Amino acid sequence: MSSHPDANLHPVATGPAKAIVDAHQAEQPLKLYSGWFCPFVQRIWTLLEEKKIPYQYIEVNPYNKPASLLSLNPRGLVPTLQFHDKPLYESTIVAEFLEDAFPDHQPRLRPESAYETARMRIWINFFTEKVVTAFHRFLQWQPMSDAEGLEGVRKEFLGTLYELAKEAGGDGPFWGGKEVLLMDFVVAPWMVRLWVFDEYKGGLGLPKEGGEGDDEVWARLRGWIVALERRDSVRHTMSDREHYLPIYQRYADDVAQSELAKATRQGGRVP
Amino acid sequence: MSSHPDANLHPVATGPAKAIVDAHQAEQPLKLYSGWFCPFVQRIWTLLEEKKIPYQYIEVNPYNKPASLLSLNPRGLVPTLQFHDKPLYESTIVAEFLEDAFPDHQPRLRPESAYETARMRIWINFFTEKVVTAFHRFLQWQPMSDAEGLEGVRKEFLGTLYELAKEAGGDGPFWGGKEVLLMDFVVAPWMVRLWVFDEYKGGLGLPKEGGEGDDEVWARLRGWIVALERRDSVRHTMSDREHYLPIYQRYADDVAQSELAKATRQGGRVP
Repeated sequence: MSSHPDANLHPVATGPAKAIVDAHQAEQPLKLYSGWFCPFVQRIWTLLEEKKIPYQYIEVNPYNKPASLLSLNPRGLVPTLQFHDKPLYESTIVAEFLEDAFPDHQPRLRPESAYETARMRIWINFFTEKVVTAFHRFLQWQPMSDAEGLEGVRKEFLGTLYELAKEAGGDGPFWGGKEVLLMDFVVAPWMVRLWVFDEYKGGLGLPKEGGEGDDEVWARLRGWIVALERRDSVRHTMSDREHYLPIYQRYADDVAQSELAKATRQGGRVP
Repeated sequence: MSSHPDANLHPVATGPAKAIVDAHQAEQPLKLYSGWFCPFVQRIWTLLEEKKIPYQYIEVNPYNKPASLLSLNPRGLVPTLQFHDKPLYESTIVAEFLEDAFPDHQPRLRPESAYETARMRIWINFFTEKVVTAFHRFLQWQPMSDAEGLEGVRKEFLGTLYELAKEAGGDGPFWGGKEVLLMDFVVAPWMVRLWVFDEYKGGLGLPKEGGEGDDEVWARLRGWIVALERRDSVRHTMSDREHYLPIYQRYADDVAQSELAKATRQGGRVP
């Protein structure tokens, strides 16, 4: 047993993600420092796949950070991008960078209008600050830790999803309508991890089609989730569920030691 | 006396800013909901002036928010932009929007390379999350409130400024060198309010030229501050100092009721 409790995670990608990792071992001027299980990494990983940008995949154990990563990014967080030997980090900034740096790669993922681009950025911030925070408050909830109870943190999380889905454009299925945008890959990693609430917290409690409390906003959200789950870039960057389980078990027991887990425990936001 | 303690602030811009406000009362498709004293507003206000974008200035008392603002932005924060009757908010998102929506207006304020644009965005986030937070921790520090003492919060704030200035490009005087960029107008409102520490906290303690602890990073920072103070768009959006005093006095006494003041008191970050 390792001295650090989180150092026991499975070391490499499995399942569909393994094939992609294997195909991206060759040296490239663009390198993705990754953790196979990390949803913030998956934002960037799906974008690289969507846009067919050549990249080298480098697996990092974020609880045992190599010097090569720390020299690029003193905080040692993944995702970190190495671009011609220079570092970039913060997943939403890296996402915008890929749009700017590879303008000839399809699909283009910003709306055509400046106004809709700005509005998307407002909701990207909302997702990271409010939805992800509520996701972790729900996941890490403990019977003794919180006066508002499990129903409270469940309702809070569902409330943030509802607020988000209300702002989605057109008939869907994606954020802006028929075509994917940056927003879709910013949210997808959490949308395909909603099973953790069935596994650990007695269910997510999303209204079922035609069921109690259902309405068109919930329907829009359900359709969005399905569309994201089916997207190739999302499916292909997922590992076998069994290897996520010990990681999310630690979150569900509120003993995980990641920056995000600790920030949640202290009542804070995404660090 | 008003029932709300912060509702006593001077109601309108004075000094240099008054002339600009007076010149921007005519109806325009772009409206800036503003508080004359608010540094987050000044980010956008300076950008509108720099780029000579037509706009209508609308003064708002943020402690007594009008329904027209709340209908645009439920949180009622300034700056809020109204663009052809649609709302935008969050100052750094609005700043990027002005670049995207008015591409023919000079100066262009993003670096030419995608990499440098992303790096600027990383440091824009650093400024808002770390520097502004430390600014307020220092300003709102109280003798009984904090074990680390006044020297601790002063050093913390100076440390964030030093970390920032180390990343500035070339010989200056601005963030990227001789020409201004978005970053300059993101930081300027706080750089021209550093006098508050002389007024309320016994001095900022920035090393003096050739004095103890001085080095080239501090020199770069001092040069940057002077260049920002002298910039027309910055000078012209400032009001008379006497009217900032009662506002910052409330921060210095740690009784201010703005969202930022409250978040600082609770140990948090920019909300």
